[in-house]
Amino acid sequence: MPQLNCEELDDIYAFAINLGKSAGKILLDAAKLRYGDDRPEERAHIEKENAVDLVTQTDEDVEAYVKSQIAQKYPSHKFIGEETYSKGASRDYLINDEPTWCVDPLDGTVNYIHLFPMFCVSIGFIVNGKATIGVIYAPFLDQLFSACVGRGSWLNETQPLPLVRNPVPPLPITAPSGCIFSCEWGKDRRDRPDSNMHRKVESFVNMAAEIGGRGGKGGMVHGVRSLGSATMDLAYTAMGAFDIWWEGGCWEWDVAAGICILQEAGGLITGANPPEDPATAPIEEARLGSRLYLAIR
Amino acid sequence: MPQLNCEELDDIYAFAINLGKSAGKILLDAAKLRYGDDRPEERAHIEKENAVDLVTQTDEDVEAYVKSQIAQKYPSHKFIGEETYSKGASRDYLINDEPTWCVDPLDGTVNYIHLFPMFCVSIGFIVNGKATIGVIYAPFLDQLFSACVGRGSWLNETQPLPLVRNPVPPLPITAPSGCIFSCEWGKDRRDRPDSNMHRKVESFVNMAAEIGGRGGKGGMVHGVRSLGSATMDLAYTAMGAFDIWWEGGCWEWDVAAGICILQEAGGLITGANPPEDPATAPIEEARLGSRLYLAIR
Repeated sequence: MPQLNCEELDDIYAFAINLGKSAGKILLDAAKLRYGDDRPEERAHIEKENAVDLVTQTDEDVEAYVKSQIAQKYPSHKFIGEETYSKGASRDYLINDEPTWCVDPLDGTVNYIHLFPMFCVSIGFIVNGKATIGVIYAPFLDQLFSACVGRGSWLNETQPLPLVRNPVPPLPITAPSGCIFSCEWGKDRRDRPDSNMHRKVESFVNMAAEIGGRGGKGGMVHGVRSLGSATMDLAYTAMGAFDIWWEGGCWEWDVAAGICILQEAGGLITGANPPEDPATAPIEEARLGSRLYLAIR
Repeated sequence: MPQLNCEELDDIYAFAINLGKSAGKILLDAAKLRYGDDRPEERAHIEKENAVDLVTQTDEDVEAYVKSQIAQKYPSHKFIGEETYSKGASRDYLINDEPTWCVDPLDGTVNYIHLFPMFCVSIGFIVNGKATIGVIYAPFLDQLFSACVGRGSWLNETQPLPLVRNPVPPLPITAPSGCIFSCEWGKDRRDRPDSNMHRKVESFVNMAAEIGGRGGKGGMVHGVRSLGSATMDLAYTAMGAFDIWWEGGCWEWDVAAGICILQEAGGLITGANPPEDPATAPIEEARLGSRLYLAIR
């Protein structure tokens, strides 16, 4: 198995942060073509096209940019990107022990189309199957989340995460009551009792309902939030703004960077299927490549 | 009825923007006591107290500050604030024809407690019952939304709203399909079939479900978002980031500023109870003081 020494890791971390910033700038510049005063002649051209096509193109452009920057600097590293993968036929080349970059050029695509600020680029670096470096940059908000194993987790490189600290307050003793619960409705909207939508809504209502309600399942969370970006959800859980994030159906590139940022902030991520005996079962760390995640700040 | 000339309105608008910025700074400074490196000795003291009490105090401090600034500059104007009202006994002093400031010192209190960035100060100025000036400032995001009747609606004083323009794209012809739908779970979590929670979730699922689902009510919206702040929801609807916002149970101070910002951005706000014949009924402008709102970008 490959090992990286401290200096190598520092170099890769600095490179990843700069890469996140420049990729985010490309995203924001492309968005500005749709609203800004920049280059009106270009904008006029683009307005004629379908906003969704424009986004697809931006997605691919940013991934190509990130991939080429990595290939130039670290030609021996593997690369997995959302766009690259979508065009591939198999899962054969997903995570193994090699140093691997795992990139979502644009998470929160629907938000990006509508110009709701919760979109970002996500860059994870994985060694021996473990999320080792994570960079998430939301350019509209100018919020950069970054972490490297052993070096903590940061907002805009200056504020340690979670934000509230000295000491970090524990989850409420009555949790999930008192917690902010983050969840997403997702794309599967089939109106069948066993559809993802109905199973998710069932869980959302359980979390929201009064204590004692829902046959004892009522969680009375402090708030239910949906941002439309799994990656931003994870970043805000690392920040401590969300206490609990639960999601099914994520891909490696949605979570690789966020897992590192969450873990370095002291958070926990595991699978979302309850064990047989919750009282005694160990809490297993989520495996990259699983689809169901439960994150706790 | 009082009339204000153009210069008077310009003065009040500039004053309101500065007031929003300085009030937002107080909010952010108070939040930093809970996480920042500023004044560690003060923070140490505050950490011992309950975060909720701290927020209540900040709420009251900011309202007192805003109220005193207004009283000093415009002693003849009426003032309605969330905190002031909560301590009063009746609704007698809510909106009438007099020039009235309608202020929520902190919208998104739960977010503020958890340091999720979606919190803001909201300052509305109302003349003859109409929202005439609106300022919403979200200090963590450094996003300032402002509008004055006849002068358009702005993000950070430089970008006209909605952001996507020239031309502003119409709602999808298949709306609500293709739209981003913004909604809030709220505080009423009673697990009874007729509770607010269950009635809301019923509507949320209708909006989310596939076309043809839910007995024909399926809306297949592009996304469902919940931010935990009615005021930010309205601001993002004005921005064009959300297409539809629906809420019951708002107070005047939650929406006074947002209604002006939305309307100046070309959006529409009405009550949320469907008319008897939706095909022919006129769309009535929402009346400040009603509780149910439906906003369309």
